[in-house]
Amino acid sequence: MFCLCLLWHTAAAEEIKSPNGQLRLQFALQADGVPTYRLTYKGRDVIKTSKLGFDLKNAPALTSGFAVAASQQRTFDETWTPVWGEVKTIRNHYNELAVTLTQAATSRTLRVRFRVFDDGLGFRYEFPKQDKLGHFVVKEERTQFALAGDHKAFWLPGDYDTQEYSTVTSNLSEVRGKMKDAVTGNASQTTFSPTGVQTPLMLKSKDGLYINIHEAALIDYSCLNLELNDQTFVLESHLTPDAVGDKGYLQTPTHSPWRTVVVSDRAGAILESKLILNLNEPTKYKDTSWIKPVKYVGVWWEMITGRSSWAYTDATNIKLDSVDYRTLKPNGKHAANTAHVKEYIDFAALHGFDAVLVEGWNTGWEDWFGQSKDYVFDFVTPYPDFDVQELHRYAASKNVKMMMHHETSGSARNYERHMDEAYKFMVDNGYNAVKSGYVGNILPRGEHHYGQWLVNHYLYAITKAADYKIMVNAHEAVRPTGLSRTYPNLIGNEAARGTEYESFGGNNADHTTILPFTRLMGGPMDYTPGIFQTKISVLNPQNKSFVHSTLARQLALYVTMYSPLQMAADLPEHYNQHLDAFQFIKDVAIDWDDTQVLEAEPGDYITIARKAKGKSSWFIGSTCDENGRTSTVNLRFLDRGKKYVATIYADARDAHYEKNPQAYAIRKVNVTSKSKLSQYCAPGGGYAISVVETTR
Amino acid sequence: MFCLCLLWHTAAAEEIKSPNGQLRLQFALQADGVPTYRLTYKGRDVIKTSKLGFDLKNAPALTSGFAVAASQQRTFDETWTPVWGEVKTIRNHYNELAVTLTQAATSRTLRVRFRVFDDGLGFRYEFPKQDKLGHFVVKEERTQFALAGDHKAFWLPGDYDTQEYSTVTSNLSEVRGKMKDAVTGNASQTTFSPTGVQTPLMLKSKDGLYINIHEAALIDYSCLNLELNDQTFVLESHLTPDAVGDKGYLQTPTHSPWRTVVVSDRAGAILESKLILNLNEPTKYKDTSWIKPVKYVGVWWEMITGRSSWAYTDATNIKLDSVDYRTLKPNGKHAANTAHVKEYIDFAALHGFDAVLVEGWNTGWEDWFGQSKDYVFDFVTPYPDFDVQELHRYAASKNVKMMMHHETSGSARNYERHMDEAYKFMVDNGYNAVKSGYVGNILPRGEHHYGQWLVNHYLYAITKAADYKIMVNAHEAVRPTGLSRTYPNLIGNEAARGTEYESFGGNNADHTTILPFTRLMGGPMDYTPGIFQTKISVLNPQNKSFVHSTLARQLALYVTMYSPLQMAADLPEHYNQHLDAFQFIKDVAIDWDDTQVLEAEPGDYITIARKAKGKSSWFIGSTCDENGRTSTVNLRFLDRGKKYVATIYADARDAHYEKNPQAYAIRKVNVTSKSKLSQYCAPGGGYAISVVETTR
Repeated sequence: MFCLCLLWHTAAAEEIKSPNGQLRLQFALQADGVPTYRLTYKGRDVIKTSKLGFDLKNAPALTSGFAVAASQQRTFDETWTPVWGEVKTIRNHYNELAVTLTQAATSRTLRVRFRVFDDGLGFRYEFPKQDKLGHFVVKEERTQFALAGDHKAFWLPGDYDTQEYSTVTSNLSEVRGKMKDAVTGNASQTTFSPTGVQTPLMLKSKDGLYINIHEAALIDYSCLNLELNDQTFVLESHLTPDAVGDKGYLQTPTHSPWRTVVVSDRAGAILESKLILNLNEPTKYKDTSWIKPVKYVGVWWEMITGRSSWAYTDATNIKLDSVDYRTLKPNGKHAANTAHVKEYIDFAALHGFDAVLVEGWNTGWEDWFGQSKDYVFDFVTPYPDFDVQELHRYAASKNVKMMMHHETSGSARNYERHMDEAYKFMVDNGYNAVKSGYVGNILPRGEHHYGQWLVNHYLYAITKAADYKIMVNAHEAVRPTGLSRTYPNLIGNEAARGTEYESFGGNNADHTTILPFTRLMGGPMDYTPGIFQTKISVLNPQNKSFVHSTLARQLALYVTMYSPLQMAADLPEHYNQHLDAFQFIKDVAIDWDDTQVLEAEPGDYITIARKAKGKSSWFIGSTCDENGRTSTVNLRFLDRGKKYVATIYADARDAHYEKNPQAYAIRKVNVTSKSKLSQYCAPGGGYAISVVETTR
Repeated sequence: MFCLCLLWHTAAAEEIKSPNGQLRLQFALQADGVPTYRLTYKGRDVIKTSKLGFDLKNAPALTSGFAVAASQQRTFDETWTPVWGEVKTIRNHYNELAVTLTQAATSRTLRVRFRVFDDGLGFRYEFPKQDKLGHFVVKEERTQFALAGDHKAFWLPGDYDTQEYSTVTSNLSEVRGKMKDAVTGNASQTTFSPTGVQTPLMLKSKDGLYINIHEAALIDYSCLNLELNDQTFVLESHLTPDAVGDKGYLQTPTHSPWRTVVVSDRAGAILESKLILNLNEPTKYKDTSWIKPVKYVGVWWEMITGRSSWAYTDATNIKLDSVDYRTLKPNGKHAANTAHVKEYIDFAALHGFDAVLVEGWNTGWEDWFGQSKDYVFDFVTPYPDFDVQELHRYAASKNVKMMMHHETSGSARNYERHMDEAYKFMVDNGYNAVKSGYVGNILPRGEHHYGQWLVNHYLYAITKAADYKIMVNAHEAVRPTGLSRTYPNLIGNEAARGTEYESFGGNNADHTTILPFTRLMGGPMDYTPGIFQTKISVLNPQNKSFVHSTLARQLALYVTMYSPLQMAADLPEHYNQHLDAFQFIKDVAIDWDDTQVLEAEPGDYITIARKAKGKSSWFIGSTCDENGRTSTVNLRFLDRGKKYVATIYADARDAHYEKNPQAYAIRKVNVTSKSKLSQYCAPGGGYAISVVETTR
């Protein structure tokens, strides 16, 4: 024991603090040359001493036997302007420690770079170019996050193929017991452990620390999961394997993604953190003028609910290269037909939406899923009742853009083969954004949605789209890690349960009080809010699901669920029944100069105020859990001396997400920076407020 | 016993014969509804009663419980003209039996289609479109070939990734004992059984029947291997699996490739068979005028032997997206430099060659192999010392084409991503043919060279090349199965040990007496003959290999190893030392109106005469094994009444493939259709003759 302590103390150790001094990062080599780090916040342990390293395939591990060859510290402070975002400018301010380690026995070098911000820690592994380490294969990354206790966790089952699980809220010690129920069915899923969880993992310690663990800048590397030791509360990295079980093929010089720990004793600070964006590289695009936030409607919810169909016929077993749709009987339920799409275009034009998404426009939907079908779509052949040229003309005449849909069915090779032609087809036909999808198991078979092969593919699709000035909103792709800073045409992802699950049995009523703390940490989500008719049976009598939200809360989501891509997901006929409430969706901005988190507690409530880009108006949204509450917010963020009219879209006193979801009330009040608003939120409810400057 | 016989006799049974009546194909259902077939030749068993069927994944097997629902017979007879070939026209004449089987318990239908030609049998499985069989996954094909005895076999170890083994000649009962030595190292190899062998499998029965088993029209299906039961001498199909162990993903309507049995009591008839071509579909291309046979030289042998290098530098660990070759020191051995390539162009122009192949022209060769490297080549970036535009100009001025080289290193996704740009680059720079390569393990990892995924890829590369009017010569790709009838821009493949192995320790002296009976059954091979300097140490003192062939036999190979793509593989400096012998390579045709096999015995000797396309001249080649022999051939194929001068390039009396390989003699004799020539072939030797009409 003495010996161990002695060595510990003589081992190399370094530390840096955050610019404000509240976070402290310590790096140390343990007795056997095992690199470790430790993170404290205001003197409290966030991450206790935790090991770093890698197991390699057919090569000695990079986990021990290290000595510190060099270490460097620096301070960085810059302010940059995102192409789109929650705020106008972002400050990137950190202190950095880079420790270069050499493993004498193998003459290999590994560098660990730590960046400590006021809101957390990012660190990554760097593998410099060197003689004894060129190409190498990761058997497993061995990064630990040793937590200080049995924190409350907002977690999803670890999985190589899906994030579409309900979030479980429990102590870490309860994960194992709750895992079985947590793993619900999905079109493609591969769990790996009874205590494996996903990132972003949101945690709250008994003494009130909010901790978020995720990764930043996931490029050409496998996506991170976390393996929980539920005795010690140590989380350890578990990467997504490839078809032969390997975790990553790397070549020096290279580096891992950043591993991120955002921490605060204030929940809102987690939501305000720009740490993950800051750890990504500045954009690589010279011209970003073609990238613009999009508010859209679409031919989608009517299929999700089962009223309409993606497929043009009820045939099965379709081969794209031989099918003749003229010989098949239309099923009469195909939504993506020219006349119907024109109705959406008319609606979009009337209400000032930028674009109309149409799913089910291209041939193959009769036989697209679950068969590991290679040539499943060609992305350029419309159904006979979908007139691409006419719709292009019609939409252009109404100043509305068309939004493309590329469902790949997980057949990644097929998508890549058709990608150039598909993007060119988009350009030729007036589409400047694409929603892509990866439903079902991946082809090449054995690969996973979150493995290096697909991570590489998703970015290939994004950068190739950029060649055509196309924006990408990829569903069922890997969860975002702030890449939109570098590739701002990545304007959306799914990577969690979106509104569609309201039609598949319903999301938990607290779902949207959690997502900003988990899924949204890495980037915006195409959550597709705005469902006014929350009883799905109105659209499809067979479907007994209901939206676990009041109507008023649906409005709030446009503010609380930040995205530069916002859909009004319901049908025009339902909006026409509530045009007064719909006014908020029309008015709400989708790009912002400022954002302030007014209230927040994960799993309970979130209230956020945002200032519209280049304008004086603000929008406030509040979402709460199944218990309801009264929200009290101070409007001190408004410009002093200015007068504003606040239009408040609120739950009625008798509103309830299940029993009375459409009960809302709209009222206008005059407000200033001195105003304080107290607003009732129904169970599963919330409110939305537009605050517009007035001269009266 | 009585019962079984009774059922057998009452079971459905059908038979058809070959047009000439010598082959008889019987189809029968066994008692338990197991489909079987049997093939006889002149009353002798070729294939004894053998089972047919499939094991499926997650579905009942298609192996038994069948009843005959329908059967149809027809006769087909047509004559077609190949774009290039051994003969001017090909007769496709067969009797056909199509048996439609239903499996009552599952309501599924399977059809077996047999075609009996005078030279053998082809049969395939057809899966009609049907309600109970749409998408399905093949666990294993269960096709038997029950041989009549312990035949002599010319075999290669069964393997999912390579055909580059030395052929073993042994009885079937000896396969197991000889397997271990037969499996020699390769850049990518996956054997699967101690009695697994490849196709084309050449067999000779004790009573003198020559039997060849292979497949035809391998499209979007896994390549066939054969599993030998060395007690019963039953061969059974063993398909190449994908990364998760499945053998094929199919969707009705579909069919298997043809399984082929070519049979004769005359060895030459095997070589003359056009059965495999006939079982392929007519060409899909409307215009084939751009497809032309090619005689070429190339910057290649000097790298294979180790004199020069593909790589421009001796650096290692190169990343294509960041390497700056201006900062690296050239190694001084890079063959593909502008000045040196011009020498090859000059040589090609001087001697009338069509094209010059250049390997090692593009960046990345410092770090291309064995690392499972994804982005290994970009196929469009030349090394600094290779001036593409200047060489394009120079070659065009000399009326010589450049031949492209695309080594993929097995990284199939990377090749597909760059394919359009790479082919466009070729068109822009005067290349109309590409030699592609798939050295090393496949990416996506877990896939095999001969699995459905790659089979699909190779054809994708061929059809996409056709869009650019590019001819393809794919090395390390799957063995050909007659696809060049349908896709005649597939002008060559490797798929066996070629001449390069003469520099890797040497091919067996009898190698070229076997290849036409095995590898060449499916299509032409880019064997790259014409090595005059057979001592490799002359090029590279470190390399002690020698070519296991006399110089005269090197000439013969241009006739015996049919290919529309023929290389003069040696260095110009070596040809300049033997311009008299080189004259044959200059003269020999590469496209033919007629072909006659004059002598043949697999493993011993082959003598073939071919008539040049559109001309009166003939060329004769003869290759023999390590024992030497005297070949006697009758020139009765010459036009009666015409006079010819035969120039005979023969081994000198003291020639020997090892001890005296360059000893040859050239003589001219006058010949007519009544002539008979007797010609000595040295051990590992042979001869070549050009027969030119004369008016003297």
